[in-house]
Amino acid sequence: MIYLTRHEHFNAAHKLYNTNWSPEKNEEVFGKCANANWHGHNYDLMVTVKGEINQETGFLMDVKVLSKIIQEYVCEHLDHRNLNLDVPFLQGKLPSTENVAVAIWHQIVPHLPEGVKLHRIRLYETPRIGVDYYGE
Amino acid sequence: MIYLTRHEHFNAAHKLYNTNWSPEKNEEVFGKCANANWHGHNYDLMVTVKGEINQETGFLMDVKVLSKIIQEYVCEHLDHRNLNLDVPFLQGKLPSTENVAVAIWHQIVPHLPEGVKLHRIRLYETPRIGVDYYGE
Amino acid sequence: MIYLTRHEHFNAAHKLYNTNWSPEKNEEVFGKCANANWHGHNYDLMVTVKGEINQETGFLMDVKVLSKIIQEYVCEHLDHRNLNLDVPFLQGKLPSTENVAVAIWHQIVPHLPEGVKLHRIRLYETPRIGVDYYGE
Amino acid sequence: MIYLTRHEHFNAAHKLYNTNWSPEKNEEVFGKCANANWHGHNYDLMVTVKGEINQETGFLMDVKVLSKIIQEYVCEHLDHRNLNLDVPFLQGKLPSTENVAVAIWHQIVPHLPEGVKLHRIRLYETPRIGVDYYGE
Amino acid sequence: MIYLTRHEHFNAAHKLYNTNWSPEKNEEVFGKCANANWHGHNYDLMVTVKGEINQETGFLMDVKVLSKIIQEYVCEHLDHRNLNLDVPFLQGKLPSTENVAVAIWHQIVPHLPEGVKLHRIRLYETPRIGVDYYGE
Amino acid sequence: MIYLTRHEHFNAAHKLYNTNWSPEKNEEVFGKCANANWHGHNYDLMVTVKGEINQETGFLMDVKVLSKIIQEYVCEHLDHRNLNLDVPFLQGKLPSTENVAVAIWHQIVPHLPEGVKLHRIRLYETPRIGVDYYGE
Repeated sequence: MIYLTRHEHFNAAHKLYNTNWSPEKNEEVFGKCANANWHGHNYDLMVTVKGEINQETGFLMDVKVLSKIIQEYVCEHLDHRNLNLDVPFLQGKLPSTENVAVAIWHQIVPHLPEGVKLHRIRLYETPRIGVDYYGE
Repeated sequence: MIYLTRHEHFNAAHKLYNTNWSPEKNEEVFGKCANANWHGHNYDLMVTVKGEINQETGFLMDVKVLSKIIQEYVCEHLDHRNLNLDVPFLQGKLPSTENVAVAIWHQIVPHLPEGVKLHRIRLYETPRIGVDYYGE
Repeated sequence: MIYLTRHEHFNAAHKLYNTNWSPEKNEEVFGKCANANWHGHNYDLMVTVKGEINQETGFLMDVKVLSKIIQEYVCEHLDHRNLNLDVPFLQGKLPSTENVAVAIWHQIVPHLPEGVKLHRIRLYETPRIGVDYYGE
Repeated sequence: MIYLTRHEHFNAAHKLYNTNWSPEKNEEVFGKCANANWHGHNYDLMVTVKGEINQETGFLMDVKVLSKIIQEYVCEHLDHRNLNLDVPFLQGKLPSTENVAVAIWHQIVPHLPEGVKLHRIRLYETPRIGVDYYGE
Repeated sequence: MIYLTRHEHFNAAHKLYNTNWSPEKNEEVFGKCANANWHGHNYDLMVTVKGEINQETGFLMDVKVLSKIIQEYVCEHLDHRNLNLDVPFLQGKLPSTENVAVAIWHQIVPHLPEGVKLHRIRLYETPRIGVDYYGE
Repeated sequence: MIYLTRHEHFNAAHKLYNTNWSPEKNEEVFGKCANANWHGHNYDLMVTVKGEINQETGFLMDVKVLSKIIQEYVCEHLDHRNLNLDVPFLQGKLPSTENVAVAIWHQIVPHLPEGVKLHRIRLYETPRIGVDYYGE
């Protein structure tokens, strides 16, 4: 069993805002992250897959194919977007790092080649704040 | 002559959009950076000052004071803000990395202690795109 | 189950020195790390907690609260201190990276909110030397 | 149980090339990585070992000893070498990051001190492509 | 006057070898860098251009255009190549970091837009070894 | 003219303390940096030299020789030392980053080969605080 990680990134706007709450409650809970006019981040995304090494290629899977899957199903939808407004697979979700990481998991799983399992989504919102999701 | 650099950061939303142009021209020139719903970045800011070493303290200036100046006159105005909408000292300016760096220069210069000169504003919008401004 | 990591840092002096041994034995075992006049490091600390995502906030827990806990119970006691002399919760312990990481675990555990578990303390003494502790 | 990680690096040339295949098939599968004249990387290697903390030293093991083991059994054989041609313990293996990581595992295991187990080989070929191997 | 820097990278094989010298003299001067079977690096390239800010775009120049120039005239020729054998604009040159940086300067200069000057080529061969060239 | 930079590092203890002042004044000016029991840092040192490229080697100078000079005349004296107590070339100097950078300049200048000039000492005390000294 080998684990392969590919790093990608996307730059996006968001706010932390629960639409069921008053602006005051949002301000109280989320502070400056609730700024009505948005703020944004350079997100660092690390996708780890696992499985057996193919004896002919020496690969778990071609990392260029993994990169393409992440680009097509994740980064093209999130990069230079507003995570609250522009992203179909985040509709109705509060775009916290936690929720975005879980949503990315579900975007990638269906597209991995046979024999390759998604192991972890690691998403950093800033260099000092990150989350890991293992699908459980 | 010694040069002292302090690194700070802020996370902000913006779009590249010339309000004198049509949406189509903005899209043509700025591409996805013109997204009407904004995008954002973790900006890395490095402020370099220069002057003589004070013989009693061994300092050009106290780096904690420099940090406080950057916080008070720059980061508090930019962090978790929308650079097109929320920042008085950027009003009427297209918030490109170039323009933001120049504006930061003018925010800091009046507040440095006597004998200390601002040397350079270095501003990175992403880890791969940065600008330097020397006040000339 | 989601995992949230917060990065913090502190700068401290220490020496590796077993007070039950002779200076010669300390020198033999710890080499230049036993220097009687101390040396020091910029420590990088990554604290990972785990639990369920709160549906209303999208958070495992507010990362600003996590940061505050780490500041109050760890960094304020270690930053700009001597790990052998100045830190009540390290008294009588040889301040190796391993021992400091375990001590940090015990400083943080009692202060986490209900439903949030401490998962890992990762402590880097230099960019090339780090330890992980999972509380087991 | 504590985990200790040491970072090392080596710079090497390689190509991805299955000698049982035609040049055309290699080109088709491996693309520019199959370039007959080689390419190369700065590899980052992180070796993690685990075990109990020794009460007298505060160490799982002396990290300088771990570094020496990695140097002697891994880096001296790989640094400034051609991974396809120059390395006895890679003979007959396609030097993908996956295969090199597994081979490094087997180079290190026999040399660890009693009571210390190898936990993970993490090998990054570029800052954005890495593999983990846990010996299973 | 503003300075804009774009970071790019390429992965290549090379050896330090003066073809006018004997293998022994090459080994004596260049040590393991002269290994006949090559070694390689992940090169980090930072290209800095300078000029006036365009008032309509807020740009010195579109950084995507700068990136494209670097890709087309530099990286496509160097990435996954052998710097001694595969690169027309390095023919007959010993591919030291110094010489490669100077050659990259001459590849980029003719392609910059009017009003934009090349300021500096910064090329890192490893994270600890870099050169700067200012065209003088 | 080419510029060559070598990165090195050392880990040291120090305090900011003017021995002509009372403990109270030191505490007032230097805050926690004046802690009587010391604190410490992982210092990052970048030494830049300049000159002409040697046509036979492609080098400004052999970077391994530069590294050796830095090791012998700087790092061996500073690494795992107390900058206030243990370093002959810092005797009587307040070991601020500024003063240490200037002292390092004078340690290196006499040992460079003919035709190679020292251009800059860059010294980072933490990842966010650095100084540059150009010998003027």
